[in-house]
Amino acid sequence: MDVLAVLNLGEFPHIFSKMGMFPVFDLAYYIVSILYLKYEPGSVEVSRKSPVASWLCAMLYCFGSYILADIMLGSSPIDYFQHNSHILLASAVWYLIFYCPLNLFYKCVAFLPVKLVLVALKEVVRTRKIAAGVHHAHHAYHHGFLIMVIVGYVKGSGVALISNFEQLLRGVWRPDTNEILNMSFPTKASLYGAILFTLQEAQYLPVSKSTLILVFTLFMATSKVVMTARHSHGSPFALIESWVCHLLFGSPLGGSEEDHHHAAAAPSSPLKTKEELSEGARKRKAKKAE
Amino acid sequence: MDVLAVLNLGEFPHIFSKMGMFPVFDLAYYIVSILYLKYEPGSVEVSRKSPVASWLCAMLYCFGSYILADIMLGSSPIDYFQHNSHILLASAVWYLIFYCPLNLFYKCVAFLPVKLVLVALKEVVRTRKIAAGVHHAHHAYHHGFLIMVIVGYVKGSGVALISNFEQLLRGVWRPDTNEILNMSFPTKASLYGAILFTLQEAQYLPVSKSTLILVFTLFMATSKVVMTARHSHGSPFALIESWVCHLLFGSPLGGSEEDHHHAAAAPSSPLKTKEELSEGARKRKAKKAE
Amino acid sequence: MDVLAVLNLGEFPHIFSKMGMFPVFDLAYYIVSILYLKYEPGSVEVSRKSPVASWLCAMLYCFGSYILADIMLGSSPIDYFQHNSHILLASAVWYLIFYCPLNLFYKCVAFLPVKLVLVALKEVVRTRKIAAGVHHAHHAYHHGFLIMVIVGYVKGSGVALISNFEQLLRGVWRPDTNEILNMSFPTKASLYGAILFTLQEAQYLPVSKSTLILVFTLFMATSKVVMTARHSHGSPFALIESWVCHLLFGSPLGGSEEDHHHAAAAPSSPLKTKEELSEGARKRKAKKAE
Repeated sequence: MDVLAVLNLGEFPHIFSKMGMFPVFDLAYYIVSILYLKYEPGSVEVSRKSPVASWLCAMLYCFGSYILADIMLGSSPIDYFQHNSHILLASAVWYLIFYCPLNLFYKCVAFLPVKLVLVALKEVVRTRKIAAGVHHAHHAYHHGFLIMVIVGYVKGSGVALISNFEQLLRGVWRPDTNEILNMSFPTKASLYGAILFTLQEAQYLPVSKSTLILVFTLFMATSKVVMTARHSHGSPFALIESWVCHLLFGSPLGGSEEDHHHAAAAPSSPLKTKEELSEGARKRKAKKAE
Repeated sequence: MDVLAVLNLGEFPHIFSKMGMFPVFDLAYYIVSILYLKYEPGSVEVSRKSPVASWLCAMLYCFGSYILADIMLGSSPIDYFQHNSHILLASAVWYLIFYCPLNLFYKCVAFLPVKLVLVALKEVVRTRKIAAGVHHAHHAYHHGFLIMVIVGYVKGSGVALISNFEQLLRGVWRPDTNEILNMSFPTKASLYGAILFTLQEAQYLPVSKSTLILVFTLFMATSKVVMTARHSHGSPFALIESWVCHLLFGSPLGGSEEDHHHAAAAPSSPLKTKEELSEGARKRKAKKAE
Repeated sequence: MDVLAVLNLGEFPHIFSKMGMFPVFDLAYYIVSILYLKYEPGSVEVSRKSPVASWLCAMLYCFGSYILADIMLGSSPIDYFQHNSHILLASAVWYLIFYCPLNLFYKCVAFLPVKLVLVALKEVVRTRKIAAGVHHAHHAYHHGFLIMVIVGYVKGSGVALISNFEQLLRGVWRPDTNEILNMSFPTKASLYGAILFTLQEAQYLPVSKSTLILVFTLFMATSKVVMTARHSHGSPFALIESWVCHLLFGSPLGGSEEDHHHAAAAPSSPLKTKEELSEGARKRKAKKAE
């Protein structure tokens, strides 16, 4: 009978939303995050020259969302570092990705089918983080809707929002762009997700939280898997956004699309963000750096 | 009889210092602050390209003082964002100034007579913020005179103190100058005001707080209105400061004056701060950007 | 009999670890710290042009460790500024070093024998700060070993870790390097010290805290005095580190040594940190700036 109850689809969202994230999902999150760090130009050199800086960057990639959310709510920014097992797991992943003999671990996890699974698992964690961030902020500020959106947003976006300072740690400084000026898909989706979860928490949305978590997870995982498989960075929101921005803010129609093309046409443009570099190019750079 | 009591000048400082700031005075504060944001070169382009970044900058301009003071006292930096009505009002002002059809709202509030009134009202809010900041810090640190000065100072200066990082949000980076190296008049006045209010709070100044608020407000409003009307950035403190700095710190006499002239002589100097650009030039730039 | 008890070596570590730091040791700490600030290129000009910026930098040099540790533990970053006597003492030192007639005070404290004594006293304070930081973090996070290391580390390193932002305050921006990428000897020693004190606090190290304080102080004072006397920046850890990094992280053997030589060979390299400039060169620069 218990098996039947688990199979009952009506219960599924609830069970899914209560499922523990540690260690499987968190492991996938750490692997994909540190993989993206290794794609960053120059990060392999930093890992050889200054392991401490490289480790710190890896920690920012893995726990940036907790650090930012703690700052936003006025807690200790390193509060999450009391979870020794999480830190150890992330450090082990960092070590394996950067220093494993023959680059074996990196080759395994960067192998596309494996990576697609990991990317999907990462989005499960991201959605849960957004929901937890909004809930946490709601607890502290009962009517602070904007605070709830901000905390959910930083929990979903993590290191991307402080990428300028993360790069500074590695000796790179690109002030002409940042994640707010040129939002990537995960950052945008985190913002919309944070708004949805805030509406749900304020009971303006007629769905249960577990259903919202399930639906948003499915959307995020599907989008990211498709985008990763296609090496694409087009956003599913592009069309709607383009029209809304045109109506509300007088932005030129299809603006972001055009911007991308311009960036592609100007190959030495310093404005290129990591999100505008195709994954293929990034991988090639990472390989060359080995 | 009540009317008479209100007219009674002895009571006036007390009534003035208890007067509510929301919504009239706060509205003026938001309008003038976001007007200054629109004067910044490039801010109109940012508002077209990334409304989120533009809105964030506007919030920093309006609530930077609260954010900084909260950081200084170890609270949540976004604590003030729980006041939904203030945020909504500031967001509406931001929308009207940047996206109003025909630029109508901007033209109205940038019309000199209107602007002079708004500037005067803004200084009322600034003085109250300094007094509140000092009082708040005094509550937390009874003998922390320096903490009281610092918190009052950041409450008065607001976004100016973090202008480097506010600019970074818009993709601009000018590391060679900052508000501490080249203090503008409002920043300097906030510092002196914070010192005065701290002395008053520590009972070294033989005046009541309400009188001090009234006098300081009158001084600030008069100075800023005159400076705005004359498009001038000369500070009323210049002469005294020049002598005191010469005696205490061996600075060359009339140094700051000369620096201004040098900056004016070198038109392409990257050291030019926004405060050194005349308001006229800034307006022209803002207009061109439309 | 009391004198005998004091002379008893078994009690000495305990007495040494309870000895008050204010005012003698703290004074030495402030003098050496602000001396290093004066060695920084451009700092004398800043002290003439903007005494407020210069004073703020001096405070960061003296109290950066407290500010950083307070931020890490989620307290008010200016919490330490409630100790008016410490602030006054540090401000007096700042004034004397930068503005004393005939540069008399600077010449006295920069005189090598005097400086060696002051440097030794400074290391006494540093060790006590690391121990106090670890202890404080242990109190807040009983099993947060990493948090203990981090807080001890920032307490020992102080302003060095935020040198990029301290420089920004003076209008200098060198993003291509930072203290994490190119650790100087005191920063490295603080990290190792923080690890040792954390192990001791977690009772993995079979020594008493007072003994550890005494031994670590002796090691730090000796090392720094020898290095200052020889104008050297070679680290006593270099050989071990080089081998450990080679084995663990695949860094080229003797890497840091080589890097130093390369930096020395490329005289206009922008990567040169303040720690790579010999003290002699820095002094000469400071003198020229007078």
